[in-house]
Order: sequence, then structure tokens, then C-alpha cells
Amino acid sequence: MYTLVIYDITDDEIRLKVAEACKEVGLARIQKSAFIGLIDSQKRKNLKIKLKRILGSSKGNIQFFTICEADIANREIIGEEIEYEEEGIVFI
Amino acid sequence: MYTLVIYDITDDEIRLKVAEACKEVGLARIQKSAFIGLIDSQKRKNLKIKLKRILGSSKGNIQFFTICEADIANREIIGEEIEYEEEGIVFI
Repeated sequence: MYTLVIYDITDDEIRLKVAEACKEVGLARIQKSAFIGLIDSQKRKNLKIKLKRILGSSKGNIQFFTICEADIANREIIGEEIEYEEEGIVFI
Repeated sequence: MYTLVIYDITDDEIRLKVAEACKEVGLARIQKSAFIGLIDSQKRKNLKIKLKRILGSSKGNIQFFTICEADIANREIIGEEIEYEEEGIVFI
């Protein structure tokens, strides 16, 4: 089962921390504010706890989706791959 | 089957057009650059054609996911609902 995480976070520092937590757990960045990957339910649970703590009472919205193999096969992409800055750089 | 559309688009005008096309087809905005909804495969196909035309050769990345009912039930949200500006306003 794939985990897709998408987020809208205004604060640069918090947004960077969220991205780092997603990377740490093994998710891959597919867009500026979207990560996906195959992680087990325990890792997904831990990630949710961590992201909840990172966001705290700040303004923002993070959404988790589980996507099965059959649905992942239907994923379609328009446009080019966007190259993202290295870790440590704030993503605008 | 749900359709989730997420996008990274730099150009304000193009990003607004993409959002409008998603709304027109019946998808609901769930984040600044994410729409979801129950639309049939023909509408999804038409939306893809339209978004491809809107993006053209501009820099950007649009991803389509299909998500089954079982997986939608697992969707989890952290943080508050973000209120988005009305149509016609450029989303930053």
C-alpha cells in the first residue's frame, strides 16, 4: 500500500521540517508539497504523529492518502519532472 | 472511483486556469493545489486533455491519481481546513 502525503503549509521552517520527516521515513518527493512511497502501517502511523507534532497549532493542512497497487498503476503525469532544491533550502 | 489532481505550477495565470478546469468538471478543492472528486472516466479523460492543453509547454507538473472507495476511507487530515480565495483571485 502506497502512502501519499500532500500539504499546504505557509511557514517556511515548518514546511521544511515536514518535507524532511517525509524523506526520513522513506517517502519520495513527487512535487513541491507532495511525497509518496511504500511504507508499512507502523511507519505511516509514526509519520502522522510526527507531522502532527511539527505542525502543532500553526496554520496548515496535511493530508494522508493510502493508495493501492491497482490505483497507483493508473497514476498519470502531465508536464516535466520538476527538480527540487537540496535539503536545507526552503521550498517556496 | 475518486480522482485526485495535484499540481505544481509556477505561472499564476496557468495555475488559475488549471484550478478552474478542475472546478468546472466537478472536483472540490482540498488544498491550494489539490482537487478531488467522484467523476466518471470520460470526464477524467477530458480533464486530462484540457489540463495538458492549458499547461502546454510551460513549466509545471500535474499528477492524476485514481483512488478507490476503500482507500478514500483511510484519508486522514492534520490541521485546519484552509479557506481559499474566490475564483478569479490568483492563488499564491
